[in-house]
Amino acid sequence: MNAQPFTIALDLGGTDLKTARVSAAGDVLEFACVPSRAGDGADALMDTLMEAARRWRAGARALGVGIPGVIHPDTGVLADVTPHLPLPAGYSVRAELERALGIPVAADNDANCAAFGEYRAGAAAGARVALVVTVGTGIGCGIVVDGHVLRGAWGGAGEIGHVAHGSPGPVCACGVEGCAEPRSGGGGLIARAREAGLACDGAIEVFAAAASGDARARVLLDDMSDALARQLAAAIQTLNPDVIVIGGGVAQAGEALLAPLRDRLPRYVQPSHLRGLRLVPAMLGNRAGVVGAGVMAWAGAD
Amino acid sequence: MNAQPFTIALDLGGTDLKTARVSAAGDVLEFACVPSRAGDGADALMDTLMEAARRWRAGARALGVGIPGVIHPDTGVLADVTPHLPLPAGYSVRAELERALGIPVAADNDANCAAFGEYRAGAAAGARVALVVTVGTGIGCGIVVDGHVLRGAWGGAGEIGHVAHGSPGPVCACGVEGCAEPRSGGGGLIARAREAGLACDGAIEVFAAAASGDARARVLLDDMSDALARQLAAAIQTLNPDVIVIGGGVAQAGEALLAPLRDRLPRYVQPSHLRGLRLVPAMLGNRAGVVGAGVMAWAGAD
Repeated sequence: MNAQPFTIALDLGGTDLKTARVSAAGDVLEFACVPSRAGDGADALMDTLMEAARRWRAGARALGVGIPGVIHPDTGVLADVTPHLPLPAGYSVRAELERALGIPVAADNDANCAAFGEYRAGAAAGARVALVVTVGTGIGCGIVVDGHVLRGAWGGAGEIGHVAHGSPGPVCACGVEGCAEPRSGGGGLIARAREAGLACDGAIEVFAAAASGDARARVLLDDMSDALARQLAAAIQTLNPDVIVIGGGVAQAGEALLAPLRDRLPRYVQPSHLRGLRLVPAMLGNRAGVVGAGVMAWAGAD
Repeated sequence: MNAQPFTIALDLGGTDLKTARVSAAGDVLEFACVPSRAGDGADALMDTLMEAARRWRAGARALGVGIPGVIHPDTGVLADVTPHLPLPAGYSVRAELERALGIPVAADNDANCAAFGEYRAGAAAGARVALVVTVGTGIGCGIVVDGHVLRGAWGGAGEIGHVAHGSPGPVCACGVEGCAEPRSGGGGLIARAREAGLACDGAIEVFAAAASGDARARVLLDDMSDALARQLAAAIQTLNPDVIVIGGGVAQAGEALLAPLRDRLPRYVQPSHLRGLRLVPAMLGNRAGVVGAGVMAWAGAD
């Protein structure tokens, strides 16, 4: 068993830890999802990671881990505290795992891993400049340029969620005045739907309500679409991508999310920058992160 | 003479053609500026380029040319018509010059050349991610990531001027609703200063009026600074640069432009993304384009 060479891939979230064995081509050979225990503190979280990694340690060439925080591209340490993790700034998941496991470890931001996964084995394959946008509670984004993840000076690239649109509206914790994320993300959508009297537990229910004719839901989704189009527009003008891949929980709405986005983009983007630009759904679903982490690990395995 | 190896660098503008001999290190060995004759049609323009290139052809290793239009990174052709040039979309300045001169030719957008010049021999030296912004009549921007110019899918990266801020205001020809460039560029500043009753021929005069206490000028510069800060903010959140270099004619205002920008950025950028970010004046002035074009040419010379 395990005859095909593989890396171990871990995709850490606030709730779940997704784990996989990944081939050099990005195929998922085996997949499992366990509770991350991030809410139980740093020790419980690192125990969960170690346990998952040791399960496949025999025969593994390397390990890749996606983390919901900013990872410095040189040092692999957490560049900042992150609300979703009980780990301090400066902590190195990479160093801890390398020491314990004795194999090369690659660590990166989870949105970067998902973007690299979609680039290597999904909807962004072959792109020169790919934006892979995760529409979940908030807006995540990974950027791949000429086959390389664009990480920025210290790992902060792709934070396109937190841009100013200047509209009066809900306040974001990020520090950006008039931040668009409360309008464009699923978390803000749900909050505002409830304020409007819609009973809903998830963003997809707001789409369902709109589809069945609820005017309140339609207004909210129009506004969400507009905010998201403007966020994408700024990134399009800056990066001139040839593909934008939309994933994340809210993207399960499918064309109900994508079609209005395609309609709105021409308002905010120069016509030239829409030429040849594809706006497509993610292909790897919730496995994009492990695929990307696993393939990144291969770079250190050879 | 001409004993030190050099490339020929041309930096084409609507009015002037700047020409230089450039060493591998980016030193300008000789510099000249002639009328570009762009207003006299394609033949006159190409004659001007050829004449300038032939002057230094003997001993030249290669030639680099910066063009005020979008150049496809693969083919070197003009990706689009450009208002400043009498050349059609699909035209290849590179191919024409290579055929006539018999040496390798590199062609790129002028903002990309200026950015690469500042990166290799100016204010962006050593940066991991550099934004080099030209504040002139409009807003130009070149991006250098890990030593490479980020050109985008077909050469359109860095068009950060044309982003939507949604404010009612002057209309831009770019197609973006609520485009910020008429607020942030020198052209719009002058037009609005005149509307406000200020006699001025250039953006710098508006800065002078503000410095001497003119309330109208101060309001206009506040608004310009705000729009520019928001444009930079979107690029900062997307790219996480470690340096932003400000050049162009309006940048001659120096700290009167930069200081208010530094003050405004914290409103629109996450605090993390300002950490370690330098906002500095360009060092190469109007020679950044020839330095960049000349150094780019060296890549094809070896």
